[in-house]
Amino acid sequence: MSRAVCVCVCSRPGGPSPVHGVSETVVGVLGGGQLGKMLCQAASQMGIKIAVLDPLQDCPASSVCHEHVVGSFSDGDAVREFSKRCGVLTVEIEHVDAVTLEKLEAQGVDCEPKASTISIIQDKYRQKRHFSKFGIPLPDFVEVDTSHSIEKAGETFGYPLMVKSKRLAYDGRGNAVAHKKEDLSSVVASLGGFEHGLYVERWTTFVKELSVIVARSRDGSMVCYPVVETVHRENICHVVEAPAEVSDKIKKLATSVAENAIKSLEGAGVFAVELFLTEDDQILLNEVAPRPHNSGHHTIESCYTSQYEQHLRAILGLPLGDPSMKAPAAIMYNILGEDEGEAGFSLAHQLIRRALNIPGASVHWYAKPEMRKQRKMGHITIVGPSKISVKSCLDDLLQRNTSNPSKVSPRVAIIMGSQSDLDVMKDAETVMKNFGIPCELTIVSAHRTPERMYDYAKSAKDRGLEVIIAGAGGAAHLPGMVASLTPLPVIGVPIRTSSLSGLDSLLSIVQMPKGIPVATLAIGNAENAGLLAVRILAKDDQELSERLAKYLDDLRDMVLETAERLEDLGSDEFLRRKD
Amino acid sequence: MSRAVCVCVCSRPGGPSPVHGVSETVVGVLGGGQLGKMLCQAASQMGIKIAVLDPLQDCPASSVCHEHVVGSFSDGDAVREFSKRCGVLTVEIEHVDAVTLEKLEAQGVDCEPKASTISIIQDKYRQKRHFSKFGIPLPDFVEVDTSHSIEKAGETFGYPLMVKSKRLAYDGRGNAVAHKKEDLSSVVASLGGFEHGLYVERWTTFVKELSVIVARSRDGSMVCYPVVETVHRENICHVVEAPAEVSDKIKKLATSVAENAIKSLEGAGVFAVELFLTEDDQILLNEVAPRPHNSGHHTIESCYTSQYEQHLRAILGLPLGDPSMKAPAAIMYNILGEDEGEAGFSLAHQLIRRALNIPGASVHWYAKPEMRKQRKMGHITIVGPSKISVKSCLDDLLQRNTSNPSKVSPRVAIIMGSQSDLDVMKDAETVMKNFGIPCELTIVSAHRTPERMYDYAKSAKDRGLEVIIAGAGGAAHLPGMVASLTPLPVIGVPIRTSSLSGLDSLLSIVQMPKGIPVATLAIGNAENAGLLAVRILAKDDQELSERLAKYLDDLRDMVLETAERLEDLGSDEFLRRKD
Repeated sequence: MSRAVCVCVCSRPGGPSPVHGVSETVVGVLGGGQLGKMLCQAASQMGIKIAVLDPLQDCPASSVCHEHVVGSFSDGDAVREFSKRCGVLTVEIEHVDAVTLEKLEAQGVDCEPKASTISIIQDKYRQKRHFSKFGIPLPDFVEVDTSHSIEKAGETFGYPLMVKSKRLAYDGRGNAVAHKKEDLSSVVASLGGFEHGLYVERWTTFVKELSVIVARSRDGSMVCYPVVETVHRENICHVVEAPAEVSDKIKKLATSVAENAIKSLEGAGVFAVELFLTEDDQILLNEVAPRPHNSGHHTIESCYTSQYEQHLRAILGLPLGDPSMKAPAAIMYNILGEDEGEAGFSLAHQLIRRALNIPGASVHWYAKPEMRKQRKMGHITIVGPSKISVKSCLDDLLQRNTSNPSKVSPRVAIIMGSQSDLDVMKDAETVMKNFGIPCELTIVSAHRTPERMYDYAKSAKDRGLEVIIAGAGGAAHLPGMVASLTPLPVIGVPIRTSSLSGLDSLLSIVQMPKGIPVATLAIGNAENAGLLAVRILAKDDQELSERLAKYLDDLRDMVLETAERLEDLGSDEFLRRKD
Repeated sequence: MSRAVCVCVCSRPGGPSPVHGVSETVVGVLGGGQLGKMLCQAASQMGIKIAVLDPLQDCPASSVCHEHVVGSFSDGDAVREFSKRCGVLTVEIEHVDAVTLEKLEAQGVDCEPKASTISIIQDKYRQKRHFSKFGIPLPDFVEVDTSHSIEKAGETFGYPLMVKSKRLAYDGRGNAVAHKKEDLSSVVASLGGFEHGLYVERWTTFVKELSVIVARSRDGSMVCYPVVETVHRENICHVVEAPAEVSDKIKKLATSVAENAIKSLEGAGVFAVELFLTEDDQILLNEVAPRPHNSGHHTIESCYTSQYEQHLRAILGLPLGDPSMKAPAAIMYNILGEDEGEAGFSLAHQLIRRALNIPGASVHWYAKPEMRKQRKMGHITIVGPSKISVKSCLDDLLQRNTSNPSKVSPRVAIIMGSQSDLDVMKDAETVMKNFGIPCELTIVSAHRTPERMYDYAKSAKDRGLEVIIAGAGGAAHLPGMVASLTPLPVIGVPIRTSSLSGLDSLLSIVQMPKGIPVATLAIGNAENAGLLAVRILAKDDQELSERLAKYLDDLRDMVLETAERLEDLGSDEFLRRKD
């Protein structure tokens, strides 16, 4: 017991002052833009004090930080002076004076993430070389410093060719495309010439851009947010969809590439890893941001712990929070300046007014003093019970016609072994239509197309299906085989046969071995199969649940009305009129 | 067309300045405590400016408001001066100078809610009389101003008797209980004597305390938040559970009482209506707060629009937001001072550290400069996929033994027509236990206990059940009858009979009329019924979904192992060892 004294200050009320609240460490943030502002909002909830260094008197974070030091985060003296008032130093922008950070770190100042990380990331070419060294998959790239080297790169990589500045590049600034060899000199000139530091990248044809926010704590533990899809327009983030609509396999791959990338960098905090999904299901790293990111704005409303709170937890050495989503779907829309000055403000205000009328929409306004075209002025996050509902809300917000209904993901599959079953199975489709549930209907034969059946059943869950209705007659193996290949609830509809009136189908579907259940319905009753699917979906869908309750009420009323008519008319008249 | 000019500024870019962001109106808030702080946090997200009037230099709201005027909200001159810098005036505490507010209102200052509302509410006796006049159900009450009148009230209402101060009463302050006639004089003295203004209330035996947050916009439209249960300890709000675990009927009744109460008051904003649920399912109004409320803290994390954003929308004349919950369940725990000074801070910090380790928990720390016993220092909201999970997280937070497992709400019901079915049906229970799904198992006979069956099926959904498994033999009416009385998915298990080996049961269960589906399984296969229930629940339960995937993998591996053994041993040896 001699030297094993308790080091936990807070458990010794008689000893030194305990921590008041979550943490008393003052967090210094280089930069006071919208990311800094949202960090301050998270800090305010937890009672954490933030000091901000930003040259603009009325920068977004100035209204909500504990202290705003007016000064440049790229000025070494200002950063050094600022660091004296902070217990830990972090960034909301990577274009800071990394050399000074390295010196401060050497003098014992706590920078999270580490200055080495900022240095690597602020030079995009160095970033690529770094990740390449660690075996992270990337598009091919090469440094170019003469007309000769860029022409050679064009020959190797082909055209179009992506030409990029190494430094101070963001939101598409510092990128340019050469479509043919003859464009090279003007493209190089538009980026400030070779002396500015350039490199080129092989043109990547991607099917989607994805992003993963990774958080690492001071003790090295990591958590990843759900993979999201980012949609860019003119190189600026336009829309973020969470979670991304890609298979579980792609989600796992994207998450592991992101994790490996961050493992190669030093320091605590959240990091955004931007990725390309290629046509052949490869994941390539595009770039990393060593800070909260536009692709994580949605986490404020949609996740148990927002990326901003997570960044604070990470750099302060607090336990990391749960990054998972508390609502099924979210979509984020950036409010970009559409015009300069007052005209731009007017358009933004109109958009905001529409957003305030949309259920589940939260409006963030950064209160930047000046409106400029393409400037990020705010954002709107829509959270909802399904991807379909948040997308349709976004369509309302943007006054677009509702997305093509044929592109809506089906929730229920109606499959049958043969086209002769369609006469029966279409009743299930009618129920889906009446309840407004997107469904798909197709022929999958267990015996005649076994490979198709295998692929169909195996991929059903990943494709977003929630219930499968399978009709089959005679030997009727389809429902049971499908149930053995998917964890989804499978509903079986026995089809009437000429030999045994469907009793063979019924027994074949219902008598499954232990372990593989099929919910079997009456012979030919595909309508009830549809209604069972509705009951299953309604369990977690308030709106559908209300429609189901109304359906059951209507069903009761219909029988009651018929009973009343029978009582009124008497049986003879009732039967006469019925004919 | 002559005078019908467009009054919408924002649609005329060439005209006067359009609104920048959501609103440029400065909101003045009387009071800068935690409610004011959380209002400012919501305002900061939307870029709305708040000015706060509070006498304390370092009041909680001071760190996040746009402007803090140090002054008393009960000082008429201070309020008048403060009102000059605000476009709209509101309160975060009702004990403000209402007389001054009335005068200001007469001079054209925009107060929301109206001064009349504040006046009525700050005098609890006047509040009761007001609601009584509007037919809102209340516990019996009467003013007392002499020993004679209080003794008479004691005779009429009986003991224990609740004695209350009319003014400046909150968090139990200003309330006292007389258990017998002899207590009266000391109780009156403890409340400052009759000259302080007293009234008495008939003692209400309630089964639960409920609360409804109602929002009303300037145009009179109203929305109500889900009914929550508030748990008080020593008269101070301790825990809030959202949504309340009461029947839909009680939810509707509570919401309508709350709505009617608020309709009788003037002005825009959010209002909290505290209610008693009595043993005989009556709802009585306890009291109203004309502002955001402790029972609505959970809305920050759990609802599409928080009560704070809603209050700002309401008083600024913006459209009201969606008050519904975006996550299935939330629980809020107040961090109350457990001791004075540093010892109290130390205990609070320990609690916070535990909260930071709990998934789905958000910590709010108000950063009040002084710690006092029973003072509200912060709160913790836990959001999660079910009531059970958030309650179990709260148990972890408070280091309590997990709640009695028998008290966990069942998700699946396993019912049967007769005890002789138990041998079969217990297999379904075993599946539930293996997957850790809370279930209940009981006997409900369609023929021998028809009323019980009716009540059981009708209340199943309200009680939180999600799937019903019903086993029956012979005529086997139970599954179908239950399915006709509930919108939940019903799974039927035919029980083997001596006469027809269960084929009678199977056909009786499966052949349901159109409109009422029963998911029928093989004769006697209750295990598959359980597994079908698991598939249905796993659809929206990631954790369960992973366990189901593992189960299916294990099932496959078991068969593969057996196949391997058969191949290794040959059929003779395999069969010999099997015996």
